[in-house]
Amino acid sequence: MTSETSPGSTRKKRVTLRDVAESAGVHVSTASRVINNPEISDQFVSKEVAAKIRNIADEMGYRLNPFGYGLRTNRSAIVGVVIPTLTNPVFPSMIRGIEHRLRESGYTAILADSDQNEAEEKVIAENMRMRSVDGLILATALREDPVVKDIQTDGTPLVLVNRTTDDSATSVTNDDVAGIRLAVEHLAELGHHSIAYLSAPQDTSTGLNRHEGFLTAIREFALDEDPALIHSCDSYSIQDGRAGTAALLDSDKDFTAIIAANDMMALGACEMLGEHGLSCPGDISVVGYNDMPFADKFNPPLTTLNIDHYDMGRRAAETLLSLIKHPENKVLSQVTSPRLVVRGSTGKAPH
Amino acid sequence: MTSETSPGSTRKKRVTLRDVAESAGVHVSTASRVINNPEISDQFVSKEVAAKIRNIADEMGYRLNPFGYGLRTNRSAIVGVVIPTLTNPVFPSMIRGIEHRLRESGYTAILADSDQNEAEEKVIAENMRMRSVDGLILATALREDPVVKDIQTDGTPLVLVNRTTDDSATSVTNDDVAGIRLAVEHLAELGHHSIAYLSAPQDTSTGLNRHEGFLTAIREFALDEDPALIHSCDSYSIQDGRAGTAALLDSDKDFTAIIAANDMMALGACEMLGEHGLSCPGDISVVGYNDMPFADKFNPPLTTLNIDHYDMGRRAAETLLSLIKHPENKVLSQVTSPRLVVRGSTGKAPH
Repeated sequence: MTSETSPGSTRKKRVTLRDVAESAGVHVSTASRVINNPEISDQFVSKEVAAKIRNIADEMGYRLNPFGYGLRTNRSAIVGVVIPTLTNPVFPSMIRGIEHRLRESGYTAILADSDQNEAEEKVIAENMRMRSVDGLILATALREDPVVKDIQTDGTPLVLVNRTTDDSATSVTNDDVAGIRLAVEHLAELGHHSIAYLSAPQDTSTGLNRHEGFLTAIREFALDEDPALIHSCDSYSIQDGRAGTAALLDSDKDFTAIIAANDMMALGACEMLGEHGLSCPGDISVVGYNDMPFADKFNPPLTTLNIDHYDMGRRAAETLLSLIKHPENKVLSQVTSPRLVVRGSTGKAPH
Repeated sequence: MTSETSPGSTRKKRVTLRDVAESAGVHVSTASRVINNPEISDQFVSKEVAAKIRNIADEMGYRLNPFGYGLRTNRSAIVGVVIPTLTNPVFPSMIRGIEHRLRESGYTAILADSDQNEAEEKVIAENMRMRSVDGLILATALREDPVVKDIQTDGTPLVLVNRTTDDSATSVTNDDVAGIRLAVEHLAELGHHSIAYLSAPQDTSTGLNRHEGFLTAIREFALDEDPALIHSCDSYSIQDGRAGTAALLDSDKDFTAIIAANDMMALGACEMLGEHGLSCPGDISVVGYNDMPFADKFNPPLTTLNIDHYDMGRRAAETLLSLIKHPENKVLSQVTSPRLVVRGSTGKAPH
């Protein structure tokens, strides 16, 4: 099979702004105002003239020359988005939310995933700023994050999403402490006293806050406070959820429920329970975090904390657009509330 | 919570190419060759000088001005990628493959999903070309696709991935006919004679080829050829897989297996069988297509055709880069081979 297209040869001559202005019978500066600054053009020309110019530009197939536009305005209308990994299915929803909100304002997202690798994240962020993105949304923040510091020093508008740093940064995050409290409360109501926790790396705000949320909630509901019931996993992966669960089962501690710091780890926990001949929730209940796509299809369907990742993405984009427009304003960080979704992986504590 | 960053005020003065050249003690045109054309610079300057210039540029924090670079070279080093929906988890792997291959050549991807909406796809493709992408990768092609035609007329380098058009286009697709044949063969070996098929919209090449592959394979293995065993679904969704299965069960036709045109539809089929009190695979076996992430975690784990979507993405990017570099060359389309993965959703035909 061969391609019949030979792209170079058929490229048409670009229609210029001058061509559009001539056809519309207006000065080129008027056409430029309407085409290049859709938001403010109504202050300079009547709606009718603006509409006429836009229609003619459409008909003639005029396209803005982004390089010339960029040189004139020093704006690219491109936003860089960096996520830790596309393999965790919570990120696609978040990206859709970001994309949809950006598109409403004529902005486009450049996406990259860092493969959860700090060096790679640095390269990506550099590369994006080289392309003069107007701002960045990072879902990759560590609590101490040199890449975030660099960007802040540089002054590129920045919003962190899902995770934040210990230092101040504009962010849209979830109330992780409240989420874990809901999970512990749910299990306490089902009669569980000994709850194990699969903890995620505490160099991320989500890892730290879910961990501390667990400790606080265990005390609030007067459940077994035993450090041996907490296993620190190396990452938020299925694999580490499996390994952590195996370690808990190999210890001599009794427990009737596991809370995992995310759904991927919870999925690994359920697998490992099955491989040890234990039933979930008959022998041990499991709760995840995120309510990722397909969490309701697993065996058993997973009880988890729902985060509206699409909404989180929209809010992050909205916040960034406001930072880009008014860099001098202080912009509020936002915290969204999780919601407990009870499914088949939790049940009454066995006697 | 408020942000303490006020981005506008701390933006540093940009280091220019002239600054780098002066520090390196070379002419600005030499610095430009090394920085702007990493691939060809070795022909003009020694490796040592090139390395020295790059190190100095790094140390001084020099960044290419993409607008000036774009005006000089008419290249953006940006590739537009359009997918039908991020909610189908096969696309993240494909995107990773595309991104990784592009990044190796210094290119960046702009990603957008069209929400499976043709009008939206048109707007996105226009918007990307307005930003002077050097090429486009579309996973959204219909067999008759006006957006593809527009891009071909315009001459922007284009590679279709996963799906292709009836007219010639450079593409990287999967051998859908071979895949469905493997599914039918597997079921025939398990003793199934009456196999139902959940067909996907035939305005896409994948929909058409899988449908025709089913008809051909049924004949090859001398199984029941009954048009009533084929249900045409409106989309590749769980919802339409559910509806199609309900319609098949409500008909008076007997069948012991269902092949679905993708895993999402197969997932819907399994759900609907359960809701009708039927066991899978005890009463009815189910086969999907794609081997999407988590297909092995469902209840039952899904037998399916594996496509290496990461590899498909890499190949698409590789092909596009070659089109961008040598627009005058004919570039071969590629077809990858699927692999049958047998899991718990298929078993021997009941007596």
